[in-house]
Amino acid sequence: MQPIGFVRSPYSETSQIPKGCGAKHDAEGVLEILPEFEQGLQDIEGFSHLFVIWTFHKAEGFALLGKPPTDDRAHGVFATRSPYRPNPIGLTVVQLIRREGSSLHVRGVDMLEGTPILDIKPYLSSIPEERLKRGWLDEAEQRKLK
Amino acid sequence: MQPIGFVRSPYSETSQIPKGCGAKHDAEGVLEILPEFEQGLQDIEGFSHLFVIWTFHKAEGFALLGKPPTDDRAHGVFATRSPYRPNPIGLTVVQLIRREGSSLHVRGVDMLEGTPILDIKPYLSSIPEERLKRGWLDEAEQRKLK
Repeated sequence: MQPIGFVRSPYSETSQIPKGCGAKHDAEGVLEILPEFEQGLQDIEGFSHLFVIWTFHKAEGFALLGKPPTDDRAHGVFATRSPYRPNPIGLTVVQLIRREGSSLHVRGVDMLEGTPILDIKPYLSSIPEERLKRGWLDEAEQRKLK
Repeated sequence: MQPIGFVRSPYSETSQIPKGCGAKHDAEGVLEILPEFEQGLQDIEGFSHLFVIWTFHKAEGFALLGKPPTDDRAHGVFATRSPYRPNPIGLTVVQLIRREGSSLHVRGVDMLEGTPILDIKPYLSSIPEERLKRGWLDEAEQRKLK
């Protein structure tokens, strides 16, 4: 695994990244792709949304159970977005604002400044919201509303 | 990067996997998580859909430009789902049918039998379909309809 580029983000520390119920991810940033991979961006500007796959480069080690910021109960790491994963891979959906050469200006970054990018893929279709079940997350939100 | 488990899939060759415009991905399969990571699945059964991050273990090398099965024109690798990527990472959204211990029975597999799994994350929200633009893919579909 090698970085294909790096994230320019307004967040230099994890404490600055909005977390928890109702957190808005509308921060703008830039995906700076390395010049040797620029050709791989051809025609990407036609897509409104992208998947960005990246590494939690500041996270060390992993925990199979952990308490997320959204709940006071512990859940399995694969049922959360915790950075402390067996493979420290992050996934973010961003909105593509514009492309300038090898720079993709995007909205919705929740990564730290300097985050290594492993891959970018077009976002092609959605699961309708009414078909989604969100397990412990919905339960935690319900408990907070009470 | 280490596998956290492997995919049990009905597909033993890439030629069997539905591709192109209108391809249906409703094949059932099993995500068999290694026993040492089973604890990380706690509470995952409450989610209807999951992101699966995996490796294209049969793909060798990469090409920055390639012609996808859906079009007769070449596009950049980051604007396609080609397996020949700088980092051979695949991403699939599956529907979780049920969990049996360390086995997740899912619908929507498009991976080969034996595919190594790197990570699983809960699918939490969707971009509304009406906000999605799908660039060259929509154009290719339009050309085919003419």
